[in-house]
Order: sequence, then structure tokens, then C-alpha cells
Amino acid sequence: MTRIPRDKDNDYSAEAAASRRAFLTEQTGAALTHTARFSVDPDALRGNIENFIGVCQIPLGIAGPVKVNGEHASGEFYVPMTTTEGTLVASYNRGMRVTREAGGITVSVVDDHMQRAPVFIFANAREARQFGLWLTDNLDGVRKAAEATTRVGKLDFIQQFAAARFLYLRFNYATGDAAGQNMCGRATREACLWIAANYPGALERWVLSGNMDTDKKHSQLNTLHSRGKRVIAECVIPDALLRERLHVSAEAFFRQRGISNIGAMMAGSSNNGSHAANGIAAVFIATGQDEANVAESQSAIVHSELTEQGDLYYSITLPSLIVASYGGGTGLPTQRECLEIMGCHGQGKARKLAEIIGATVLCGELSLGAAVIADEWVSSHEQYGRNR
Amino acid sequence: MTRIPRDKDNDYSAEAAASRRAFLTEQTGAALTHTARFSVDPDALRGNIENFIGVCQIPLGIAGPVKVNGEHASGEFYVPMTTTEGTLVASYNRGMRVTREAGGITVSVVDDHMQRAPVFIFANAREARQFGLWLTDNLDGVRKAAEATTRVGKLDFIQQFAAARFLYLRFNYATGDAAGQNMCGRATREACLWIAANYPGALERWVLSGNMDTDKKHSQLNTLHSRGKRVIAECVIPDALLRERLHVSAEAFFRQRGISNIGAMMAGSSNNGSHAANGIAAVFIATGQDEANVAESQSAIVHSELTEQGDLYYSITLPSLIVASYGGGTGLPTQRECLEIMGCHGQGKARKLAEIIGATVLCGELSLGAAVIADEWVSSHEQYGRNR
Amino acid sequence: MTRIPRDKDNDYSAEAAASRRAFLTEQTGAALTHTARFSVDPDALRGNIENFIGVCQIPLGIAGPVKVNGEHASGEFYVPMTTTEGTLVASYNRGMRVTREAGGITVSVVDDHMQRAPVFIFANAREARQFGLWLTDNLDGVRKAAEATTRVGKLDFIQQFAAARFLYLRFNYATGDAAGQNMCGRATREACLWIAANYPGALERWVLSGNMDTDKKHSQLNTLHSRGKRVIAECVIPDALLRERLHVSAEAFFRQRGISNIGAMMAGSSNNGSHAANGIAAVFIATGQDEANVAESQSAIVHSELTEQGDLYYSITLPSLIVASYGGGTGLPTQRECLEIMGCHGQGKARKLAEIIGATVLCGELSLGAAVIADEWVSSHEQYGRNR
Amino acid sequence: MTRIPRDKDNDYSAEAAASRRAFLTEQTGAALTHTARFSVDPDALRGNIENFIGVCQIPLGIAGPVKVNGEHASGEFYVPMTTTEGTLVASYNRGMRVTREAGGITVSVVDDHMQRAPVFIFANAREARQFGLWLTDNLDGVRKAAEATTRVGKLDFIQQFAAARFLYLRFNYATGDAAGQNMCGRATREACLWIAANYPGALERWVLSGNMDTDKKHSQLNTLHSRGKRVIAECVIPDALLRERLHVSAEAFFRQRGISNIGAMMAGSSNNGSHAANGIAAVFIATGQDEANVAESQSAIVHSELTEQGDLYYSITLPSLIVASYGGGTGLPTQRECLEIMGCHGQGKARKLAEIIGATVLCGELSLGAAVIADEWVSSHEQYGRNR
Repeated sequence: MTRIPRDKDNDYSAEAAASRRAFLTEQTGAALTHTARFSVDPDALRGNIENFIGVCQIPLGIAGPVKVNGEHASGEFYVPMTTTEGTLVASYNRGMRVTREAGGITVSVVDDHMQRAPVFIFANAREARQFGLWLTDNLDGVRKAAEATTRVGKLDFIQQFAAARFLYLRFNYATGDAAGQNMCGRATREACLWIAANYPGALERWVLSGNMDTDKKHSQLNTLHSRGKRVIAECVIPDALLRERLHVSAEAFFRQRGISNIGAMMAGSSNNGSHAANGIAAVFIATGQDEANVAESQSAIVHSELTEQGDLYYSITLPSLIVASYGGGTGLPTQRECLEIMGCHGQGKARKLAEIIGATVLCGELSLGAAVIADEWVSSHEQYGRNR
Repeated sequence: MTRIPRDKDNDYSAEAAASRRAFLTEQTGAALTHTARFSVDPDALRGNIENFIGVCQIPLGIAGPVKVNGEHASGEFYVPMTTTEGTLVASYNRGMRVTREAGGITVSVVDDHMQRAPVFIFANAREARQFGLWLTDNLDGVRKAAEATTRVGKLDFIQQFAAARFLYLRFNYATGDAAGQNMCGRATREACLWIAANYPGALERWVLSGNMDTDKKHSQLNTLHSRGKRVIAECVIPDALLRERLHVSAEAFFRQRGISNIGAMMAGSSNNGSHAANGIAAVFIATGQDEANVAESQSAIVHSELTEQGDLYYSITLPSLIVASYGGGTGLPTQRECLEIMGCHGQGKARKLAEIIGATVLCGELSLGAAVIADEWVSSHEQYGRNR
Repeated sequence: MTRIPRDKDNDYSAEAAASRRAFLTEQTGAALTHTARFSVDPDALRGNIENFIGVCQIPLGIAGPVKVNGEHASGEFYVPMTTTEGTLVASYNRGMRVTREAGGITVSVVDDHMQRAPVFIFANAREARQFGLWLTDNLDGVRKAAEATTRVGKLDFIQQFAAARFLYLRFNYATGDAAGQNMCGRATREACLWIAANYPGALERWVLSGNMDTDKKHSQLNTLHSRGKRVIAECVIPDALLRERLHVSAEAFFRQRGISNIGAMMAGSSNNGSHAANGIAAVFIATGQDEANVAESQSAIVHSELTEQGDLYYSITLPSLIVASYGGGTGLPTQRECLEIMGCHGQGKARKLAEIIGATVLCGELSLGAAVIADEWVSSHEQYGRNR
Repeated sequence: MTRIPRDKDNDYSAEAAASRRAFLTEQTGAALTHTARFSVDPDALRGNIENFIGVCQIPLGIAGPVKVNGEHASGEFYVPMTTTEGTLVASYNRGMRVTREAGGITVSVVDDHMQRAPVFIFANAREARQFGLWLTDNLDGVRKAAEATTRVGKLDFIQQFAAARFLYLRFNYATGDAAGQNMCGRATREACLWIAANYPGALERWVLSGNMDTDKKHSQLNTLHSRGKRVIAECVIPDALLRERLHVSAEAFFRQRGISNIGAMMAGSSNNGSHAANGIAAVFIATGQDEANVAESQSAIVHSELTEQGDLYYSITLPSLIVASYGGGTGLPTQRECLEIMGCHGQGKARKLAEIIGATVLCGELSLGAAVIADEWVSSHEQYGRNR
């Protein structure tokens, strides 16, 4: 018998986990000692995981403080980062120092929507077009049906994309402090049911996703129209400070950006910067975000300029940063502690967290970008990395 | 004073971590109780993290067994998955059952290279072209310089991409069981130094990355030419089995694929499937992979067909799956245990792990894809998710 | 002296053209006999060209009739096509026969807008966001300023895209039967002047294009949001007819589409079909369209299905087809004659022309697609092509 | 009876054309007077067109001279351009003046290959991988089979791309002075027949195109790996000259490039420049190129820098410029005359033509780019355009 053991009465217990670990050890020979060392109450994991066997312990480091001049985060923040890659925390920390000394990073959340994208299927394109016009005229009814399913979510607008005999829709919701994918799924399903019941024309069928959400993957659509929060972090760093702390001039940094832009363009890259995913993943895991959303969140648009004074204006736009301060994994013990380090746990804190992450990402771009130009990239990994 | 405390003598100790936690509590008011509960020896974290303060405990569930017909992984495997998103483990588990009953998943690693992509800068395009010809003629010297820095890495080939007065190179290495980014960085740096010393023509300068690596981000280049391992998982699932277990017919599943492909194409998506990132991230974190590589690894090409018998041929190609069984975070206690559950720890196991992940991802695609069509997507999240 | 001769009094005369031809012959030795053979009145070329020296004679062939079931084009049409590539006309003609016998092609224009995309530059992203909100609130004023410049153009909506300290706008106009690029340019310039004069906040400056138009080039943005007309052509072709006329079964054709889709996706292609640009360019040149708009217009989304009866549903979506029946080169003598062959000259005919082109493109896709599968591609070029 | 008349004995005659025109007039009412005015001998059109009815007369203007510092084109050239869009010739002419005064444009052809991309289909991915290894080992046999079909074409290398149970190949040929699509098709077909006859493993089937050619469409693959000629044009333009002739400073021009790059990146554009397609299409039609190749050729990578002296380094990389000086439409009377104006007709002239086009495109970018910044864009169209 090779079925994973389950406890029908209470599967979220230390005993159920132990039973599964014992089963695995028997089946595979793996000793499961450390995974059994957890302080979370298994009962609190309902809604977070199934077939619970224990925990992974991911090393947690601290960087900062990063100075953020946001609308929701204002001041200096220590940033918890989980990683197993040496140099990462040190590199972000280095960037935080230089931006702090430069007066901090201005961060703005300029858009904030989560999506679900059903598709409606018709006999032909003309009927699909007719439906699109009806939908625009009946947005109030659709919204009412969608919003009846949620206390928090608000349906702000629906985009339409036509191809073949299909009309692809993209519902855009405000979701408060939750990431909101499930909220949007449920609301959009109800909206589709309402549409199907009320549309007077012929409708072949509908499906809750036509793959234009685009959930758990990068897309140009996300870059254009955002998914989650669109966050822009900006900083002006004096040339002298760059030279002193990062060993590059503003001009050398700026020139390399031009070269990197062309490389990214030729590669068809989702991101013309360096490694936004590093900082994002490290904070996501620490704070209980859905780690698969690194897929969307890693996209970035870097733009820099030399100011008239010869200093470096540096900006990074994260068009699809998906963060929550509430729901999902944010309430688990270690994750909550990490959020609390930044004062970002609970309702009303999602944009604050987004601003801190935006600033953090900028710091990492500066640090790695400079290390590459100053030829310190390899040596820093020799110093901090595992393969030394 | 707001500097994070460090211990100059031994910063990788429980005391140093405690001192930093105390500092954070003082600075931010956050109680750091659970993050202090770790069983890893801090001294073992050198090379994995800086400013260590403790751990995040990420819930760990188990799915499977998944039946893999690979060249390196052959048989049934239980798959450890970390997540905080309810339904995820259950959904992958469901797909594992149906593919197991269908006879298992054939998985093949068809390419395997890690990259570093320097750029060489010349007075004009013609000189860059001249350099490219020289480089092709002098590959042996370049290879020798690169490989002198590593016991494991082998420089297999160098690609050239020309734009403006730049020649972008992409060095492709075999890196054994390590992911190999640092190995490639060091080797390529030495190669570039050798080139600069030996190239008889005029060279303005070189930089170790021209952004065509493309590290920690998605790119069309990665999809075309792989990054890490190119893994193809395939399965034929009988129509009757699909109907019984997943409540969709092979034909309905197949038709929806056509609609999803168009949606993905219009969106400019990195992935025409559903949610590969979910399975990848969950196994990556459990097994000590670099979680930021979800950025590259989430890309996928799904292709399905109806067989003459009316069954479903389903395949997923992961063009840039970056996995290691050695180095990085793979040796940390809980991560190592997770690898051992699958018999994937240590040397000679990276492709085995890649095959298991490829099979796992396929299972998740089937399960979610079917749930969307059968209108069970929202209800399954109501059952397992946090927002119920 | 090497300046091209000009006649200050009347540069649009046969004499001025002859003088320039004589100059070129003197300078380059080229005999310019055939280019001098034109029947157009040079005086009629004001606004179409500068430094006029004569004409190119492009061979003109005729295909059809194509049976179109459109809203503007209904019935059978002969389609004039200019080309120098043997096989092209024959291939489109072949496709027209089979679709005619299948009952014709349903074509629908589902969107119709021309764009101009200025960019507004601010001190930082937050000010850019503030401007975006103001713009939404002041759309009436913007529209009034824009529409004051044109009898025809209507400003329907403005899209906003934020990055760094910039707000990129995309003005979308209805332009009647003209392609409308110049109309949109002039209207948007006036709108920007009005904005700059009325915006109460700080604005660094604006530029009439931030490169998101995206004029004379392909973009994912065009594919998503259309440029010019979004045209969808659809047809159901009986299996027996496909076998008889094109020597492929519906199933073989359909299976190959799946393979071609994956190829296009991996390549990062603007078009998952075969050669829409061939038909588009051939009709564009014949009818006086701006031939550079082939850059945008060549993008296509092909979707096919097997019906329950085993026949082939085939559709092609042209998301950015830019056509005019008025203005530009549509009034030149040969071009006008070509439009008149289709009853498409003058006001109120642009959508009719778009429908005929959509149907024509579909025919070419069928014909070439089948030839590739039936292994008749090379032999047909041996028969009709120049390299026989 | 509605069939287009054909003459079985000699369809390439003035009489056959007249008969078709009469037919069209009868069927559609269109008077076909001007299309009948041609000087080309119909008998010479075999291999260029079918169902010949006459010609389109496309206005032909002249720009230049453009000063080209190429390896094949060296000196000053007058460039024939066909267009119906006022301002186009004048704008390119303006750019030619300023670059001439700046000392000319350096142009380099850095790659030169035409492709055909068959796909091979196997039972599964592993067999496809096996085939790929065999193919690499048997390249000599493949090459011999391919090259037996052509005096000119040389098979340089084959790229492999794996997905699902398919191996997509991309055959890269040197094709001399012809564009070479048909040559590559025939050669690759023979190669595939040889492969199918000699491959010892199991092969389900092959198809001559798997859509990775990517013919008559833009693709990221073309941008990365070229299609036709990869041409890089470069120029340094003194700041004072820019100010005097184009009314912008080098710095203003350069700053706007940064903004345009971000716009292009967000849009997912095939080209971060302005309007390469305009110049390319105008010269293509004049010189008998395949006008549908504007689809591929319009892609461009613009890179500019400010020199230490404050002047503007400006470059444009055309990664997929498809031009011929021989074959196709290059021998038709007016087209040949246009080629002769530039000394580009016949064998050994294709790269010369490519260099002149590269330089021409650069001039158009400078002129339009400056007009946008100097706010002269709309006014120039008011002066020269049709809608004045």
C-alpha cells in the first residue's frame, strides 16, 4: 500500500504529520528529522497546505535599513530576506546603504488591480463582437453579480480582446490587502453565470480562464496593464557617492545601462534590469507571499538618466508586483514576524509592503549593476558564496 | 545607532543571530519568537546567507507518488512541496493519481547548459565582426582559460549576437549537478581576461554581462536556447480515465487548449500553459534551489493532441528549468531531507530531480486545466483555500 | 555640382521629372527609359511624393473571385494584386476557389482605431500618476481640442501606460475612410498643447511620440489593442473539398496547425500563420495604401478547429490592418482603378476593402498551408517561379 | 461565366492581359485605362506573376546623395524611392544631407543567411533528441543533398529547437545575390528526403516548414539570429550640425532615445526606432524586392550614445534585411533602372544594396526623430502631405 496516510478526523495535527513522515521514511529511507522541527500549530495550516508533514527551514537574513520615501512606507526599514544564496543579503544591504546616504528612495504605487480572464465562445466573430457591445452596456449588472461574492473586492473595469470566434475578457478588481486571485476567481465566476443567464444573444459557452489573466507567468500584457501592483521606485545618487561606495562613476553606470538595454531587447527579455527576482523572491518567501508569483513579479523596466549635475537618476518600474499583507501565508508565525519587522502585517499594509519591496529591488539593482561594471561581481561571490 | 550588529569573530553563530533579533525587536517592536526556532547549525550557513537571524518555516506537504518514466528517475516518487497556498498540494496530487493510472509520465532532459553572457565593445560594428571571427578561430584558447577555473564546468559553445558596436556573447557550460551560475561567472571572467590579453585587434573594453544571460528573468532567448535544463514531459491519458478522475473528456480538454493557446499568444505570455510556476516554486523551495530562478523556470510550452483512439497526448516543455542536487541550498538540513525523499541528494542527481519536477509540473497542468473546464476551480479553492 | 535639380516654380511637372532623370543619368550612367513611361499627371502627385522622377511599373495580376460574406463587402470580388513573385497570384487564386466552393468567407471588422502616442515627462512617477488622474477627469477638454483640427477624426479614448517618471499616452481615434496617421498626429498635437496650457500641476515637457503608437512596426501592443482595423475572417471548409482541391484532409491540415503554433511560439513570432504579408502587400501596393504599413498589418492570429462533422473551421484575425479608401495614394490613376475593380474607391469604402483583404489573406493561408503539407510547395514554385 | 480568361497558348501577352482587363471591366464596371499603360514586355513576366492584367504605376522620387562608407558601397549614392506618402522622400533627403555633411555613414553587413525550417515528428521527445544527435553527426550528407540542388546556395549550419515530440530545424544558407527563399526551399526539401531515407531510427514524418523560418513575418528569432542580411549602420553627427540642420541638440536627441526605448519595450515592439519600414518599403518596391519581406525587414535595434565631445553616435542594426540584386523582380525594366541608379544590378551587388539601404534607413530615423523633438513633425506633413 502506497497511499499517503490521512487522518479523516483531523488531518491538521502533529500526529497526522508524524504519521506521514514515518510513511515517507519507510517508503524512501529518508530520515525526516529537521522537517519535523516546527513551531507552527498544524491546526493553523488549514487553508495553506494539504498533506502537511512539517516545514522547510529557510535561512533568514536581514538587510537595511532601507530609507523609503513612500506614501505608505516612510522612513527606514529593516528588510527580512530568505535565501540560500550567499552574497544576496550582503549585496542588497550594500545598495541600501548607498541609497540611504543619497537621501532615500521615492516609491509610488501607480496602479493596483488583480485579474481573472474568462473567455466567451460564439458561433463566429460577429456574434462575439455583438456580445462585447452588450457587455459594455451591462457593466452595472455584471459588477453587481461579481461584487456580491466579496466584502472587499471591487470590479473596476473589464478589458476585451477579440480573436477568432472568441471574446477574451480581463476583469480587473481592487482587492484591498489580499493578493486576491481566489477572490477574483469566485467573483468572476458569479459574473459569468449572471452574464450567461442574462445575455439575450446566442452564447455557445464560457470558460473561467482563457489564459489572459495571465496567472503565474510573465506576459507582455502584464507589463502593459499591470497585475497586482505597479510600483515605481526612483532615486538620485550623487556621482561622488557612487564612486566611493560602489566604485563606479555615474557615467560608467549609465553607459552600461544602454548596453544592457540592447542586450535585453535582443533577448526578448521580460526585464531590462539585472536581478529583481532575487530581492522579490527573498522577501516573498519571508513574508508569506505566494512564491509562484515571482513568475509575474520579476518583470521590470529600468530607466536611468544622468542629471545635469552628473549624478545618476535611477528608476525601476515593477509592473506586476503581487503582494499581500493579509490572507494566504501572511498569518503564519514566522511570516507574520517578518511582516512585523517592517510594520506590514494586517489590513491596510499591502501598499506599504509594496513600496518597501520596490525600494529593496532598486538597491539590489544598483549593487549588482555596479559590481559587474567594477569587476567585483566574481570576487564578491568568492567572498560570500558557497563555491569559494 | 542603527547598524545591524555583527560579530567580527564569528558571525555565523546562534549568538550573533540572537543579537540581531534583539536589535530588530528593539528597533521595530517585532517579537521574533518563531524565526528563532531552527535546527540548522548556523555555522553551516556560511556561503548561504549574511546577517543571519533565524529561519522562516514554510509549510511542507507531500504529493504523490508520481510515476516517472525517465532516464534518471524511473519509478514512483513522493514529491515534497512547500507552499502557503491551500489547494496546491491537493491539485498536484490529483494529477499524479491520474497520470499514475495512465502508466506514468515520460520525461526527457534534452539540453543542459548554464550561461554567462559578456559583451565586448569596439569602435564600430566592423571591428566587432572581426573580433567574432577571431573568437571562433580561438575557441580552444578561450575554453582552456575558462575551464582552468573549475573542476566540473565544461565550456561547450559560445553564441554571438551583434548590435551597434557591440558583440554580445553567450557562453554555454555543462555544470554537472550544480546550477552553476557562479561557476560560469568565474570561468567566463577568466576567459574574458584571456581574450583581452590575446586579441590582436583593438578592443575598447568588455563587461562580464551584457544582459543576454538572461539571469533571473524570462526571455525568448531562454525559451529558444534553454537555460539550465530543457525538460520535456509527456503522457497519454485515456479518455475514460480523464472523465472518471478529472470530469472532462479528452476532447473538451483538447479544445480548451486551442483557446488557451490563442489567449497566451495575444497576451505575449512566457507560457501557454496554466501554472507551472506553482509546482516549480513549491519544489524549488523545498529542495534548496535558488528560488529566484522561478523567473526563468516558469516558462513552458504546452502541446497536446487527440490520439486516433480519442485519448489525450499531453506534453509540457520546460525550456529553462534550473535545478541542482549539489551546492547552493541543497545541503541545508530540511532541504537535504526533501531531496532524500526523492533520492535526489548529491552528485549525479540533478537530472533525476529535473525529471521528477517535469513530471510534477505536468500533473499540475492536467489537474488545474481540468478543474477550469469542469467548473470545479472555484469550488476546490472554497474547499481547500484560506478564503473559504 | 551634385544637387538634385528642382524647379522652384513648378516642381510637379513632366519637365522637372525629366530634368532629374537627365541629372541621374549623367551622374550614374543609368538609362531611365521605362521609369519615364507614366500616365499619371505629375501635377496630381503633390502631397504624394517629392523629387518625382517617374514611376515604377509593378506587375498587376488578378485573382478571384473571392466570395465574401461581410457586412460591407457581400458577394464575389476580383482582387488586384501587384507582385514580382511568381506563384503568389496563383496560390491566392487557388484558395479563393476552394473557399468560394465552400460558401464563402465571413469577415467582420471588430475594432477600428488609429493612434498617436505622446509622452508626458514629470519630475517623478508620483507627479505622472497625478497627471493621469487629471487627464481622465478632463477628457472632454482634450477631445474638444483634438477634434477641432479635423472634420472626420473622433477621439474615442486615451490609454495610459506608466514607467519611470513618464506617462505614455495612446490616443485612439476613429478616422473614417482614411488611414489617418497624419490626422491623428495633428489632432494629438493640438490636444497636447491644450493639456500643457491647462494642466495645473508641474509638467516638465511633452513629446508627440513616446514610441507606443507603434507606427510602422509590429508590436504586441498592436496585437492586443489593434491599430487600424481588427479584421476576423472565418470559413468552414468541407473535408472532401479540401481533399479534392488542396490534396489534404481537414485532419492533416488541423494537425499541422498545432505544430506551426508551437514553432511560432518558440520563435516569438508576430504571426502564427504562414504568409499574410504576401497578400496584404500585394493588395496594398495595388490600391495605393501606405506600403510601409505592411510592418503592422502582417501580424495575424490563426485559429482552426475540426468541426463535429470533421470539416475545417479556419479563421485568421488581423489585429492591425491599416487600409484606406480615401486619401494617401488611393486617388492615383492605377491605384484608383484597382480600387474600382472591387468597388472600393472613395468615401464609405474602407471597411469594405478591409473585409475583402481579410478574406484574401485567409485564402492564401489555406493554399500555402495545404501545399506545405501535401509536399507541393516546392513543385508549385518550380512551375510558376522565376528560378525554374 | 465568371472565370478569369486565360490563353492556353500564351498567357503572357498583351492580348491576354487586354482580354482580362475587358473581362474585369465587364464584370465590375471599372475602367482600366492606366493599368494598361506599361512598357514592360509581358513575355518577360513569366515567373513574376500570374493572371497579368497590366501594371500599377507607383510614383518614384529620388533622395540623396547619401554618403556611404561601406565595404561594398563606398561613396555617394542617389536613392530611388517609391511612395505615395508625401514628406517621405523629403524627410530621407534631409537626413542624407546631414549625414553627408557629417562625413557619411559606416555600414557593415555582419551576417548573411536565408533559412528554411522543416520539422521532424517522432513518437516522443526522447526519439527526437536521438535524431538531433544523429543529424549533427551526419551534417555532411545532409549538406551534400541540399547543395546538389543549387549552383549558388551553400548550407552553412542547422539550428535545432526541441518541443514536445518535435524537432524543429532551421537550415541556414548562403544564397549569393538572390534573396534565396525558393532556393532554400528546394534544397531543404532534398535534404529532408535524404534524411528520411538515411535516418536509421524511427521517424513519424516531416514537414518542410514548422514555422520557425520565420518567413514573411517578424520574430524574435529573426532579431536574434538574422534572416537575410544583418546590417549595422553607424554615424557620428556633430552637435552643431544637428542644431543647424535638424534643430535639435545632440543631448536632446539622445535623451529622447531613452524615452523611446522604454516605450518600445513596454509595447513589445519589433523595433525601438521610428519608421525603418518607410525607407525599406520605398526602396524595396523601387528595386524589385519582394515587398512582403517588409514584414521581416522592418525590425531594428537603435542604439545611440553621446560622445565625450558631446556629439551623437547613432546606430541602427537591421537584423533581418532581405535584399537581392538578382532574381525575383530585380530584372524588370523600371526596377532594373532603379538598381542601376545605385550601381546595384546583377551579380555581386546584393551587399552593396544592403549597405545603401542601411544608410538610407539611418537617415530617415535621424530626420523623423529630430522632427518629433523639434515639434516640426506635424508642420512638415502640413507642408508636404496630402491632407494639407
